[in-house]
Amino acid sequence: MDFEFGRALNKTTTTTARASAESAIDARLEGDDDESEDDAFYSWRVGGANDLKITHLRDVYRGDVPLVAQPSPFCTTTACPLSGPRTSVEFNSNFVSNSDRVLLNSVAFGSSADPTQTCSLWAETFDPNGCDYVPQWVVRAGPRSEVYFDSDEVHAAIVTCGGLCPGINDVIRSLVNTLEVGYGVKKISGIRYGFKGFFSGVEFMKLNKKTVRNIHTLGGSMLGSGRGGGDVQKIVESIIHHGINMVFVIGGNGTHAGANAISDECAKRGVKVSVVGVPKTIDNDILLLDKTFGFDTAVEEAQKAILAAATEAQSAYRGVGVVKLMGRQSGFITMFATLANGQVDCCLIPETTWAAHGPNGVINYVRNLLDTQGHAVVVLAEGAGQEFVTSTGVDAGGNPKLGDIGQWFCKQLKSELKCDIKYIDPTYMVRGCQANAHDSIMCTVLGQNAVHGAFAGFTGISVGTVSAHTAYLPIPRMIEHERLVDPDGRMWHRTLESTGQPDFF
Amino acid sequence: MDFEFGRALNKTTTTTARASAESAIDARLEGDDDESEDDAFYSWRVGGANDLKITHLRDVYRGDVPLVAQPSPFCTTTACPLSGPRTSVEFNSNFVSNSDRVLLNSVAFGSSADPTQTCSLWAETFDPNGCDYVPQWVVRAGPRSEVYFDSDEVHAAIVTCGGLCPGINDVIRSLVNTLEVGYGVKKISGIRYGFKGFFSGVEFMKLNKKTVRNIHTLGGSMLGSGRGGGDVQKIVESIIHHGINMVFVIGGNGTHAGANAISDECAKRGVKVSVVGVPKTIDNDILLLDKTFGFDTAVEEAQKAILAAATEAQSAYRGVGVVKLMGRQSGFITMFATLANGQVDCCLIPETTWAAHGPNGVINYVRNLLDTQGHAVVVLAEGAGQEFVTSTGVDAGGNPKLGDIGQWFCKQLKSELKCDIKYIDPTYMVRGCQANAHDSIMCTVLGQNAVHGAFAGFTGISVGTVSAHTAYLPIPRMIEHERLVDPDGRMWHRTLESTGQPDFF
Amino acid sequence: MDFEFGRALNKTTTTTARASAESAIDARLEGDDDESEDDAFYSWRVGGANDLKITHLRDVYRGDVPLVAQPSPFCTTTACPLSGPRTSVEFNSNFVSNSDRVLLNSVAFGSSADPTQTCSLWAETFDPNGCDYVPQWVVRAGPRSEVYFDSDEVHAAIVTCGGLCPGINDVIRSLVNTLEVGYGVKKISGIRYGFKGFFSGVEFMKLNKKTVRNIHTLGGSMLGSGRGGGDVQKIVESIIHHGINMVFVIGGNGTHAGANAISDECAKRGVKVSVVGVPKTIDNDILLLDKTFGFDTAVEEAQKAILAAATEAQSAYRGVGVVKLMGRQSGFITMFATLANGQVDCCLIPETTWAAHGPNGVINYVRNLLDTQGHAVVVLAEGAGQEFVTSTGVDAGGNPKLGDIGQWFCKQLKSELKCDIKYIDPTYMVRGCQANAHDSIMCTVLGQNAVHGAFAGFTGISVGTVSAHTAYLPIPRMIEHERLVDPDGRMWHRTLESTGQPDFF
Amino acid sequence: MDFEFGRALNKTTTTTARASAESAIDARLEGDDDESEDDAFYSWRVGGANDLKITHLRDVYRGDVPLVAQPSPFCTTTACPLSGPRTSVEFNSNFVSNSDRVLLNSVAFGSSADPTQTCSLWAETFDPNGCDYVPQWVVRAGPRSEVYFDSDEVHAAIVTCGGLCPGINDVIRSLVNTLEVGYGVKKISGIRYGFKGFFSGVEFMKLNKKTVRNIHTLGGSMLGSGRGGGDVQKIVESIIHHGINMVFVIGGNGTHAGANAISDECAKRGVKVSVVGVPKTIDNDILLLDKTFGFDTAVEEAQKAILAAATEAQSAYRGVGVVKLMGRQSGFITMFATLANGQVDCCLIPETTWAAHGPNGVINYVRNLLDTQGHAVVVLAEGAGQEFVTSTGVDAGGNPKLGDIGQWFCKQLKSELKCDIKYIDPTYMVRGCQANAHDSIMCTVLGQNAVHGAFAGFTGISVGTVSAHTAYLPIPRMIEHERLVDPDGRMWHRTLESTGQPDFF
Repeated sequence: MDFEFGRALNKTTTTTARASAESAIDARLEGDDDESEDDAFYSWRVGGANDLKITHLRDVYRGDVPLVAQPSPFCTTTACPLSGPRTSVEFNSNFVSNSDRVLLNSVAFGSSADPTQTCSLWAETFDPNGCDYVPQWVVRAGPRSEVYFDSDEVHAAIVTCGGLCPGINDVIRSLVNTLEVGYGVKKISGIRYGFKGFFSGVEFMKLNKKTVRNIHTLGGSMLGSGRGGGDVQKIVESIIHHGINMVFVIGGNGTHAGANAISDECAKRGVKVSVVGVPKTIDNDILLLDKTFGFDTAVEEAQKAILAAATEAQSAYRGVGVVKLMGRQSGFITMFATLANGQVDCCLIPETTWAAHGPNGVINYVRNLLDTQGHAVVVLAEGAGQEFVTSTGVDAGGNPKLGDIGQWFCKQLKSELKCDIKYIDPTYMVRGCQANAHDSIMCTVLGQNAVHGAFAGFTGISVGTVSAHTAYLPIPRMIEHERLVDPDGRMWHRTLESTGQPDFF
Repeated sequence: MDFEFGRALNKTTTTTARASAESAIDARLEGDDDESEDDAFYSWRVGGANDLKITHLRDVYRGDVPLVAQPSPFCTTTACPLSGPRTSVEFNSNFVSNSDRVLLNSVAFGSSADPTQTCSLWAETFDPNGCDYVPQWVVRAGPRSEVYFDSDEVHAAIVTCGGLCPGINDVIRSLVNTLEVGYGVKKISGIRYGFKGFFSGVEFMKLNKKTVRNIHTLGGSMLGSGRGGGDVQKIVESIIHHGINMVFVIGGNGTHAGANAISDECAKRGVKVSVVGVPKTIDNDILLLDKTFGFDTAVEEAQKAILAAATEAQSAYRGVGVVKLMGRQSGFITMFATLANGQVDCCLIPETTWAAHGPNGVINYVRNLLDTQGHAVVVLAEGAGQEFVTSTGVDAGGNPKLGDIGQWFCKQLKSELKCDIKYIDPTYMVRGCQANAHDSIMCTVLGQNAVHGAFAGFTGISVGTVSAHTAYLPIPRMIEHERLVDPDGRMWHRTLESTGQPDFF
Repeated sequence: MDFEFGRALNKTTTTTARASAESAIDARLEGDDDESEDDAFYSWRVGGANDLKITHLRDVYRGDVPLVAQPSPFCTTTACPLSGPRTSVEFNSNFVSNSDRVLLNSVAFGSSADPTQTCSLWAETFDPNGCDYVPQWVVRAGPRSEVYFDSDEVHAAIVTCGGLCPGINDVIRSLVNTLEVGYGVKKISGIRYGFKGFFSGVEFMKLNKKTVRNIHTLGGSMLGSGRGGGDVQKIVESIIHHGINMVFVIGGNGTHAGANAISDECAKRGVKVSVVGVPKTIDNDILLLDKTFGFDTAVEEAQKAILAAATEAQSAYRGVGVVKLMGRQSGFITMFATLANGQVDCCLIPETTWAAHGPNGVINYVRNLLDTQGHAVVVLAEGAGQEFVTSTGVDAGGNPKLGDIGQWFCKQLKSELKCDIKYIDPTYMVRGCQANAHDSIMCTVLGQNAVHGAFAGFTGISVGTVSAHTAYLPIPRMIEHERLVDPDGRMWHRTLESTGQPDFF
Repeated sequence: MDFEFGRALNKTTTTTARASAESAIDARLEGDDDESEDDAFYSWRVGGANDLKITHLRDVYRGDVPLVAQPSPFCTTTACPLSGPRTSVEFNSNFVSNSDRVLLNSVAFGSSADPTQTCSLWAETFDPNGCDYVPQWVVRAGPRSEVYFDSDEVHAAIVTCGGLCPGINDVIRSLVNTLEVGYGVKKISGIRYGFKGFFSGVEFMKLNKKTVRNIHTLGGSMLGSGRGGGDVQKIVESIIHHGINMVFVIGGNGTHAGANAISDECAKRGVKVSVVGVPKTIDNDILLLDKTFGFDTAVEEAQKAILAAATEAQSAYRGVGVVKLMGRQSGFITMFATLANGQVDCCLIPETTWAAHGPNGVINYVRNLLDTQGHAVVVLAEGAGQEFVTSTGVDAGGNPKLGDIGQWFCKQLKSELKCDIKYIDPTYMVRGCQANAHDSIMCTVLGQNAVHGAFAGFTGISVGTVSAHTAYLPIPRMIEHERLVDPDGRMWHRTLESTGQPDFF
């Protein structure tokens, strides 16, 4: 499910990205404990830009109480005594060094034959002078040997924002378990129904190992989730009022923007608060990451809807099964569910343009399928073909409302073809289910590392999977724009190979 | 499911690996079309060893008929006409360059504080002089613009060897679809019940798009699988006799050794045959790869067995649930299923040593759990604790037979503790099921790329997922030894964090 | 899933039923082989009406070739030789006697306290003179020792009509296996896309043991299903033209009416054709039966949709989950899925009337739930509240089109309450899936008995489960009207107990 | 899943049954409120035996405080006000009359052709003089208008005994919800780990609506289950000591014997205690009932194991899949899972005898299958072929230990045939899972009716499904012996039809 994601750069942002890369060309990691080590370590890099530096409280905190590092209470060796003081032998083992890095871009393109495709893309973005591959590094996640919080003084808050996604409860459970069991934190508050819960007056939920014990067997968010409410001032006042000093934010792009603003505002006000995000988007549309939690489960469930549609289509005379899947701006679920199912004839995503009518239009293609194989299966992302449907306004989260392309498409089909249409919109059944084993593990790992990151003193960061490793990423870089399917990439081409569909224009 | 796999290097082989690295220190890719481009491309590497070069028919084929490259019939653009000749515009688009590379090692360790842990491991292996990170590149998989086979003359054979694994039928289906639909191959033979099927006299199965249409909805191998039978001479004679020129081998380490030997023997005899492997191991124990197909599904199913064991344990007075999972030498399934389930108290894998008896033994730990929380859940890999159980002989595939550690452990428990043991061995239920959506996609991608690799003229290669991309790998390097869980790695430590178990010695 | 179904008599039809009962008061089974045995057998009945007599070809067939009974080739003993002639010992064992009966009404109501409820209902219907319980018998299904068809001359046709339902392929498979393996029939035709397939020109599908081997692993109908096309003359002409003499019809009420008409027309034309129905209705709305195949699976799937809706509702601030389930005139799926889920607050079915607005309306109830427990889950059948939504026209099957009560209800909610609505219509995902084990067994049993019934010479019958046994029923009595949920029955009351909902008027 | 169960009478007990029937020939229901009504009601019965009378506290209670009936607080109308006093109008509606009856035997056999088969069986058992069908009635379950307990004074106890079965938690949940919400009971205790929990000193678990809210999403028993501990004196002392006056016992045959003894002892000591059983047996081996809860789920899961075995067998050269399923004395799970799967070649149950060796033995049959179709699937119940395996001793519940027929059979196969055996014992995975929708509903209904029965003053009863209705049954009649598969019945014959297996002797 994670093949060839790395290249999903959005062409529309290369200008921004290039500027960013240029300005960062001489940047160095300054926040690490041992700068000389770091210099040596990075000396092999030629012309590398370090624009994925993450923020540490030391960088931004201006409060009166000095920031002091202390040995981590987190036990990283199997020899940790069940009780009693730890010995010095155990101390340095197995912690992750602040200088550990994970490579963001693991493919090097060797050919310059097609100027739009490979080498030159990198050249354009990162190195105007040549075709050389330039590695991009991000900070490896994990427990640090030195922490910046005393467990007894920690008041952690957890908040879940936006739409549902399989695995939210798994993340909450992992956060609570790591805080309580791993670090000995005693005060953990669950904020209800999104950011609003900081100031809405709904009582915080007290969280501990017991309350979260079985929550991963249920879908949804035990805290309740909600859109909007991103009033940074009110939130930070609530944080200060309640003495919260760690905030874990589970949400998507917009929510991460909020998390970053909260981190900034806390720094500005001189309060020592670590804000750490865990990217939650069922659309899998977060930049830089291999994939996000819940996506795997969503594809599994979405595939079942396609299977039902295919069954209906094949069991009807001139049957057409139409499935609308999630994906406001990116077609990842649609693309992967199409590949997993293997019976789809036509896959339409927001990243490509297509005509419905005309000799090369989708409807004509469906007509051809009905005449030859007797049935057709069409899968489209909710954000596909938005130019055909008018819609106005925004939802509570500030996202523009989408027109209903699924209904529109079925209407067009019906008016032009003699066919028997079965339309499925499985959205809430895909979102609301329990995480599968894969996502459950991923959520556990993300939750653990989010806590490690907060204790290590990082803030304004998010935690995600990069080149199959867990890393800390600076929020601003992750939310520059939605990650999109690359219509020139291998994965999309594999999808076309599977459906056999032509260009629709 | 793919976090932090990259570091699973086995310490016992570092000597071999170092020798290999040293001898390869000056090696260059020689098989690429455009050597100068390639040189330029790799110039940034300092001291890099290129020991992951793959073999092309040009390197080894010594037959009389000259080897000729021709334009690929595979259509890589969405503009491919449904019929009629392709235009030149379409030609070069979207093919993968022979110089494209994927990075094998995507983590750089920054610290030298602990000499056994990080920087120095790399130093020891790859660069005796320093702590620098040295990238390791492998060849990116995908369709090439030039192929070395005429579709009309191809006779492809597919063989499945060894134990079952979810997704085998998906791979077969993808191979057949890509051969027939993507390249126009008309002659595809399924070899029955493993390597033996080449010469056992059981008739080959004729494969085409129709025969494989729904096979992915069933577990197992539609061709039948089997161990042993690796008589290279007989196999190659059969290949020559039947005019087979592409062999796709789905199997594990031993099977890949066979595939490599077949490739060598064909070259030696001057016949033009491409042999391509697709790694199949439910244990996930193949070197270099992120993970192998079927592993994700296996973890999902294994987790269900653990859930049943936990239910039994919790519902009984002093209940102990014991689950034995697959993993002859590596504990990946056991480790991941433990993490996915989240209710396991003790996880035992082949890579760690543990005492059953004594004050620090597992039995005493279980006693303590029964006295405190009232029940216990223990999960062990079949290869764990083999020093406690005697066994002799080898199976048909040449693997040493394992002693039954599950039964042994239950017997020890019963004799020492007052408890109610429920023992589950779900092996065949884990192996025999249908692939989930994730593995189904992975299998589709692997099958497609195996065919691309054969048409491109590579032989003695295998196809797998590396740093979240698909790559071609030289078989000898993949089968140096089984891949193992790193007992000092983050993933194992996360597992210990989840179970809360101490050291058992 | 089969509790307390027996009483679901529709009050609106009691007049018809009573007239039918009265006119039949002296009827006797005349078609049985051994009338005297039969008379003796039924002598214990006092005042019993035998209005569930089924039709035999002897009753209606007026063709020139005499109707001859012959020993059944079906082997009913475990001692049947794998080949060779059967011995006389085996002959009579284990066949079902034509006089075997199954009791339709297995509850006797003892109280006359409430005149509308119990004893008097039966009195009104069956026995105007008193409160005595009067048993109603139906013919037990199963293989008969004498059959009226020579296997070599049988040409069987199978047709599937109407909407999809889990298990259709299981029934087809069982029909084909029993025909071919059990009776040695060699000619079996699958009619494509419903009744129309008899004369549409689409080629019949040849069916045999091999073609149906794995079809039960897929949902839908391998033959294709379709509404309408019930042109009896054309169908019978096709039957005669193709020499078909057994017709197995899988469909609902309308389809059964067609089957009965075909049976009558064949008799009228003097052709020897057995027409046997297998009731297929995902709504479970067939009179007299415990339940129909696919219903159990449908409830399982419907419940998943409710679970998703409940998850969404509980995870949102003032969240309301609304699920629309199948059930044009009867609320069985809605009722059972509500009970299975256990988290539903309000269940609305076609059999009850309810107000949406006003102080006792559903909306006010939802408001109250939001104010007290914070969320609400509402499940409604598609046929509920049709008085609120206007709709016109009929579908291809002649059923009146329903207004979309789900959308209407959500709109009302939204306009009156501040709430966050998640609406799910899982219809096609419920219909299109594979049958579960329960339904798979049921389908196997129904298919076997349908073939037994046809060979025994019955026609115009249907096969179903009655009081936990399989029986043959006269089609006209089954299709008098849809079976409905009894709003005064225990099952509906249990549902109210589970939801806690009040009356909505 | 409930077809043709009614006839499963065990021939070995007909003598007992006949004596019982004879002695009861003149019995009359004496405990009902309105005897004359009852007499009238039963007057139509000719020679009927009423040996399924259930016990009421009025029959047995000899304590000092008089037993007083009072109006039920349970609301059975939809018009029940959400709060406030009930009006008289509501009072009598929808309660079940004490005279309502459910018919136990719903098939009448019409033929006397085969004296061992049909009519004469009934004649032998119930009516020595003729072949007439004699109905057998049981008391219909449901809420009564008069109850014998004041809700405020009720202290209910719930105990779960014996092995796990899907749905136990659903029953507990339904009991607690009906007690608390339906009747207003405030004191409910969960007894831990079976009967022993009454006196073991392990603290009772306080149960209420909240504690049971989500327990049905987990398998097992939240209270813990256990075998043995049936010390009636100690249990009754504990009951008296804690002031318990309702005991709900979830368990199998042995547990029900205990429940009955507790009921008797309480009566003897003059304490007013209602003891109500809910039959729990995954083997479905309880007399008189259509089927028991959890059976449907167990068949679904067992079928998955068979599917895995079939996959393994078909994917191996001369592969044999062997599955051992639950069923100590009865083969219901084995038979139904075989039917559901449809790929089994040989099904062996305790009720039939079979030879392993010899020309007609199972091994020879498997040899034949391997030679012809290449593979074989054998499913056997754990209690099958016990004459081949020696075993001694009894388990904690007093059941004789079984020899391991699965291992024995595989060993025989291996020693006689060249084959590749895959053996699966899925027992704990079948028992430990969550109930499916069907069983979840069944459990809800059983739990509700158990509470209704206790409040109505019945004791020494059990609640179960009879002819598709819920009924109260006298415990002694239910536990006369295990219910067995009838080897001459239709269901077993259908199974043989499905497997195609011959007699094995």
